[in-house]
Amino acid sequence: MGSQYDLQVDKVVQEVKRRKSKRVILQLPDGLMQYAVQISNRISKDTGAEAIISLDSCYGACDLAVHAASRLNADLIVHYGHAPWVSKSSIPTIYVEAFASVDIGSVLPKTIAFLRGAKKIGLLSTVQHIHELIKVKGFLEKNGFEVMIGKAAGRVHYDGQVLGCDYSSARSISADVDKLVLIGGGKFHSIGLALETKKESIVIDPSSGSVFSTKELLHQYLRSRYARMVEARAADSFGIIIGIKFGQLNMSEALNAKEKLTGSGKGVTMFCVDNLDPERLNFMGDIDAFVVTACPRIAIDDAERFKKPVLTAEEVKIMLSSELLEGYLSSG
Amino acid sequence: MGSQYDLQVDKVVQEVKRRKSKRVILQLPDGLMQYAVQISNRISKDTGAEAIISLDSCYGACDLAVHAASRLNADLIVHYGHAPWVSKSSIPTIYVEAFASVDIGSVLPKTIAFLRGAKKIGLLSTVQHIHELIKVKGFLEKNGFEVMIGKAAGRVHYDGQVLGCDYSSARSISADVDKLVLIGGGKFHSIGLALETKKESIVIDPSSGSVFSTKELLHQYLRSRYARMVEARAADSFGIIIGIKFGQLNMSEALNAKEKLTGSGKGVTMFCVDNLDPERLNFMGDIDAFVVTACPRIAIDDAERFKKPVLTAEEVKIMLSSELLEGYLSSG
Repeated sequence: MGSQYDLQVDKVVQEVKRRKSKRVILQLPDGLMQYAVQISNRISKDTGAEAIISLDSCYGACDLAVHAASRLNADLIVHYGHAPWVSKSSIPTIYVEAFASVDIGSVLPKTIAFLRGAKKIGLLSTVQHIHELIKVKGFLEKNGFEVMIGKAAGRVHYDGQVLGCDYSSARSISADVDKLVLIGGGKFHSIGLALETKKESIVIDPSSGSVFSTKELLHQYLRSRYARMVEARAADSFGIIIGIKFGQLNMSEALNAKEKLTGSGKGVTMFCVDNLDPERLNFMGDIDAFVVTACPRIAIDDAERFKKPVLTAEEVKIMLSSELLEGYLSSG
Repeated sequence: MGSQYDLQVDKVVQEVKRRKSKRVILQLPDGLMQYAVQISNRISKDTGAEAIISLDSCYGACDLAVHAASRLNADLIVHYGHAPWVSKSSIPTIYVEAFASVDIGSVLPKTIAFLRGAKKIGLLSTVQHIHELIKVKGFLEKNGFEVMIGKAAGRVHYDGQVLGCDYSSARSISADVDKLVLIGGGKFHSIGLALETKKESIVIDPSSGSVFSTKELLHQYLRSRYARMVEARAADSFGIIIGIKFGQLNMSEALNAKEKLTGSGKGVTMFCVDNLDPERLNFMGDIDAFVVTACPRIAIDDAERFKKPVLTAEEVKIMLSSELLEGYLSSG
């Protein structure tokens, strides 16, 4: 099975045999879906278990297919692409991180120019590249930097790992370092990291082989979110959306946002959703702005697809405080 | 609350009060979603219960939001737009059919021309217009026809009602009548009805005020499904999709299709899904054709959005039998 990811199918097959599983739900994020049928057929053929691939989207370990497994009386979930979630599933689960086998050695020298003036570096990674931390640490140390890797905490499984909804491993070290280095593709985690730590972050994207600073990205991001908060501040009626996915349900955050908004004279209607289709918010003509408490990525990544302002719960606090809102643009 | 549907909000409010519900999940199909916020705000204001609108799609009473209600510790579901489902929900549920208040009196005379030559008429309706059955029966009788209304059976709640997945009320009378008359908008139920009964069906669409025969529609439908079955017959690898929604899970039908397909030398991979996004099947490059056991409407209504043949379980039986496949085009 040729793949740039370490799919560990032999190990999965052994585990399914050892557990004598009868029915296995196989769950993968979109980026790994192309391998689903091959993995499933290997499990069925080599273990005799009934493997069933979940066709629903999968955005993280928070999106674990516990409901599907329970509906289908499955006795095992094989979840690809994410590290184990912080809370245990009621259905036994094997997590296969699917570490990327891209060699980042040749990209590393590009980082040096971005680290000029810094002495102490905080090093972070998304889960796909977490096994590269030691290599990058060695490289940076050889180039005269002092390197710190934050401890796993909160929802995070590995030391130095960041999640779109949890940067605690970064926060634990950011006060002690001059700059941060993140190994991971895409803009979402790098902006989140910069925003949470208020530190310039240098991003190594192993897939594209590019290295960039978050400085300009963060300013763009702040301007765009600021505009949405200003628009939402003028809104009369808010919809608060609660996620029902395995690790996304946050009722207290939703009720908290409701209290804050009604306390400020805003009307509030409550919503719940499994998978949010931005188009469906258009049905809600009576609502001027939304707050998503499910996953911060929904409000941020899908921003262009929403016709109305959609905020995170954190942004509600900022929006309702003149002081925080005024200072927001310079908070990066 | 101006609406062409009887939303019975006062009755819902009374029921929520009587049951002393604390948290209510409000669920509506797309056609009624525009009233969701008004209904929700009435429930919250008049009863003090926390009303939460489900933003996920809702395709029938089979799609009841039991999982959402259970995740959110709701003690009541208010489900709009469909008649009660055949199996009980673990969460107490109020069904509000939302009968349409469109007057069909002026449309009825158009039906007479379509009923030429018939003496006995079988009368059916989708749930939105079920309260019109008596009026239409009276009209047809006054015009000299003998009218039969089939008994509720299977998944069907009302006498004379048809569901996209259950035409038993029609089958129970079709042998005894010359033609069928269906009150209901859209093509899906009318084609299903004609296909299940092999009888010409005259459709009264109350929304558009039009009346039409299913004769030509059915031929188009048969040709299109025939082409898909012929294409699927040549496929080597099949994906069988099991739905996990409240009333759509049919494991035995899925396992049955699997047995039939593997018995005919086809490769089979199993899938499960809550809400099927046709685009997601494109990830599955290894699969040549799919079988959906969740809801017949998925294979039929979304046919144009699938790049590969997607069959119902019933169509698998036809596809695998040369005799049935050869006779299919003339089965209408």
